[in-house]
Amino acid sequence: MNQAIAAPFGEGADLISTTQFDRDSVERLFSLADSLRPLGRSEYACDVLGGAVLSSLFFEPSTRTRLSFEAAFSYLGGKVLTTTGFTFSSMAKGESIHDTARVISGYCDVMVMRHPDKGSVKELADASLVPVVNAGDGAGEHPTQALLDVYTLRRELANRNKAVEGSVVAIIGDLRYGRTVHSLIDLMRLYKGVRFRLYSPASLELPAEFFERSDAHRLTVCNSVGEALKGADVVYCTRVQRERITDEQVAASIEKSVLLNRDMVLEHNSKDLIIMHPLPRDSRPGSFDLSDDVDDLPGLSIFHQTDNGLMVRMAIFCTIFGLDAKALKASYTVPKWHSAKPISRPKLHGAVRQAQDW
Amino acid sequence: MNQAIAAPFGEGADLISTTQFDRDSVERLFSLADSLRPLGRSEYACDVLGGAVLSSLFFEPSTRTRLSFEAAFSYLGGKVLTTTGFTFSSMAKGESIHDTARVISGYCDVMVMRHPDKGSVKELADASLVPVVNAGDGAGEHPTQALLDVYTLRRELANRNKAVEGSVVAIIGDLRYGRTVHSLIDLMRLYKGVRFRLYSPASLELPAEFFERSDAHRLTVCNSVGEALKGADVVYCTRVQRERITDEQVAASIEKSVLLNRDMVLEHNSKDLIIMHPLPRDSRPGSFDLSDDVDDLPGLSIFHQTDNGLMVRMAIFCTIFGLDAKALKASYTVPKWHSAKPISRPKLHGAVRQAQDW
Amino acid sequence: MNQAIAAPFGEGADLISTTQFDRDSVERLFSLADSLRPLGRSEYACDVLGGAVLSSLFFEPSTRTRLSFEAAFSYLGGKVLTTTGFTFSSMAKGESIHDTARVISGYCDVMVMRHPDKGSVKELADASLVPVVNAGDGAGEHPTQALLDVYTLRRELANRNKAVEGSVVAIIGDLRYGRTVHSLIDLMRLYKGVRFRLYSPASLELPAEFFERSDAHRLTVCNSVGEALKGADVVYCTRVQRERITDEQVAASIEKSVLLNRDMVLEHNSKDLIIMHPLPRDSRPGSFDLSDDVDDLPGLSIFHQTDNGLMVRMAIFCTIFGLDAKALKASYTVPKWHSAKPISRPKLHGAVRQAQDW
Repeated sequence: MNQAIAAPFGEGADLISTTQFDRDSVERLFSLADSLRPLGRSEYACDVLGGAVLSSLFFEPSTRTRLSFEAAFSYLGGKVLTTTGFTFSSMAKGESIHDTARVISGYCDVMVMRHPDKGSVKELADASLVPVVNAGDGAGEHPTQALLDVYTLRRELANRNKAVEGSVVAIIGDLRYGRTVHSLIDLMRLYKGVRFRLYSPASLELPAEFFERSDAHRLTVCNSVGEALKGADVVYCTRVQRERITDEQVAASIEKSVLLNRDMVLEHNSKDLIIMHPLPRDSRPGSFDLSDDVDDLPGLSIFHQTDNGLMVRMAIFCTIFGLDAKALKASYTVPKWHSAKPISRPKLHGAVRQAQDW
Repeated sequence: MNQAIAAPFGEGADLISTTQFDRDSVERLFSLADSLRPLGRSEYACDVLGGAVLSSLFFEPSTRTRLSFEAAFSYLGGKVLTTTGFTFSSMAKGESIHDTARVISGYCDVMVMRHPDKGSVKELADASLVPVVNAGDGAGEHPTQALLDVYTLRRELANRNKAVEGSVVAIIGDLRYGRTVHSLIDLMRLYKGVRFRLYSPASLELPAEFFERSDAHRLTVCNSVGEALKGADVVYCTRVQRERITDEQVAASIEKSVLLNRDMVLEHNSKDLIIMHPLPRDSRPGSFDLSDDVDDLPGLSIFHQTDNGLMVRMAIFCTIFGLDAKALKASYTVPKWHSAKPISRPKLHGAVRQAQDW
Repeated sequence: MNQAIAAPFGEGADLISTTQFDRDSVERLFSLADSLRPLGRSEYACDVLGGAVLSSLFFEPSTRTRLSFEAAFSYLGGKVLTTTGFTFSSMAKGESIHDTARVISGYCDVMVMRHPDKGSVKELADASLVPVVNAGDGAGEHPTQALLDVYTLRRELANRNKAVEGSVVAIIGDLRYGRTVHSLIDLMRLYKGVRFRLYSPASLELPAEFFERSDAHRLTVCNSVGEALKGADVVYCTRVQRERITDEQVAASIEKSVLLNRDMVLEHNSKDLIIMHPLPRDSRPGSFDLSDDVDDLPGLSIFHQTDNGLMVRMAIFCTIFGLDAKALKASYTVPKWHSAKPISRPKLHGAVRQAQDW
């Protein structure tokens, strides 16, 4: 984490890396996210960020991450300016990232940036007049993904009267290139006594550095998905991109299988297993990923993750702008319109599965 | 219409097909649109959708349709998140439309989607937590276009103290591939005693299925534009794309002519003929389309159609969110700013023709 | 200026050309911009344009100009609809600019357009129901750039107890193709007794027409940057694009040099020299442009230009919508959130250099 130099996360700060959080600040963020759920579910409206402008800069396509950030800012009453594409027209003319950052930061109150180059978001932040949030800097970090993963894991466990401390988390799939997996393991250090059961195809193992750390005892390498699932409270899946598998035999072997499906869950664990995935999942036939046939298991939490991303990103903006739960609640109003979101009222068709989804 | 399975249109419903409307619901929508005109013309402002977020998804370029929907939502006080392009970055990685729909629907209160594949919008709607509006699904439907066409036709006739019932509508141009023509004829079934006079170049006739229906007696095929115009209250034009004409002689014959111009209108009907067109019209020399020389005829209604599209789409959103005219009127406020729209005050130059336009 | 036919700039008017301004109207605009600074710096919020919709049309990439206009409208409480790309899907089908303009203008209250073709913005404006602002029409004009340049120049001089009248402005770089330079010289005619000291590489001189005008006595051609800087209150730089230099010797000579750097400023003028540049500047090694090593000189004003662009564009929208400083001040509110912009409170890190920037 060459970005650990960033200041602790709080009011007026950039969000570059998960290393900006300690146990207290991450718990403060999560309880703020809890208090924001009624906004994200459109039970209430608020304009607490009225007059604030977000500049959303995506130099790499990531529609859902962009929409999640932009929705979070919008539900708080702020206005969003979007830029997508591979570069600024000005950068193409040789403008430095310093000049670009300084100029754009004069047009907004906060920036969210995704960029393929590791470290680029930090570079932008250092020249910006306003706080910058990292929405993914290539091989670097994607801190809000890690935060929403831990928030969801914590929330799903709590719904089952379990704590994160002492929980058992199976992580299966591509552990080598899966950036979200690395951030998850890093951020989970804030919680005591968590154990990870790891399974990956040969050549996609977790990088050696993780086993050289002082807390390597948290990690157990397993020889099969079934073994990894044993005694797990949660399974976190990441899809395997075949093009990344060097060993042809391995590639051939997974050609005919899936990473995880309903039968494997029921055989090696239970229907209540908390199933997570950073999404997107590859639903094409023969993809080595999480199967659609788990979708009606009660433990399926993959859409809770994306829903929670909205709440966590709202909490991040509120923290940056110095808004606490009390100030927020005071600004809540009942919308004049009727939401069709299942939490408020059933949609006229298909309400049942959606209520379960939500 | 393999989409007829959609529920009747109303609060919390998707809008997929014109078949979701009956005479009562379409009239309710139109009177709601009437009451919204002062908003669309910026005589009043309102924030009745304050706190609501629209996700506008255009997988096929259609700038005006997109802007019309986004303006409608904005004039009601809602916030808009826009996505344009050929696909989601996530879909490119094999994500199912179900997963995409479920995820995005967690970030908004309603979705508007345009997609080149017939049926895709319905598929999206079925997995969405929130209502979805069809902005055109390829060879499928473009229901809001049909609704604004009938709304305009009804309104223009009413301005001349005529009813839709018993009116005579000439439809000329490409009747085979012109999707809007098909939807118009379908939706007009809700009005009794309407007669259609049809003219198209050979090989671009209205599909046979229309003549096999119980109400085929409404349809009269004509051998010339002049014949179609005889006794018509309205002429609805659609441009002919030459690449669609198989017969070379026909292609050659229209090469030297226009579909409809001022002289033809005055010779075969009158200057008061209501002239409609879904737009865009091809104004390039030699295009077989509606000529610009009709632009100062008092019956020209092609821009009333696009202006009315804003009102109709506002009415659609209000219906989905359970807002009636009374709730709306209560929320109207006088803007602090001075609109330059001709209805409010003349623009400093060219006010005259614009007032006529409007 | 074949666009001089445009009406004087004011309420309800288009903004096509700087020729629409006289001394009084430009001063009114600038004092309005002064009164809007607290909004642009997020000390206050306002929703004075609540209910108004801007359609932002960029047919040519210009991220910063677009964001500056969109931020200006957003900070006034309006809503923005963005369209970027090379053309409308409808224009590709042969639609005239008249039809496009008329249709889009029914969806908004004002349009901002950038287009590569000279005169195209005027053409759009003439068919629009609502006012249109020129954000650059190729070889034509970019009036808001000229306005923010003069506003900044005037403001920086005032901070040094100097007036624009009688000031000495060095202009160096590409004086032939630099559109902003031409507009600056034109607009400065509104101020008496201004003298320009010009330096450009051979073949990039100011066009002859400028020397044939009645006020050519304002112009002094210099043989070096050093000579141009002598006695100057301000230096305005524009980057030189080598591909535009025909003379190979000249091209070779500038290959090894920069346009202006710290040493040249200190040797030929002083550290307090007001340094301006329309940006972007080319910071790549060997570029013939303004060097980054001037960035800590107290006279550096290049980022004040971009910051001021926000204020000037807010003032333009307020003028178009008939809002004066008094109406605006009455609508100011204290935001519920805490801005991290240095003017309001120091950002948690790097506050010092940023306060100087701002």
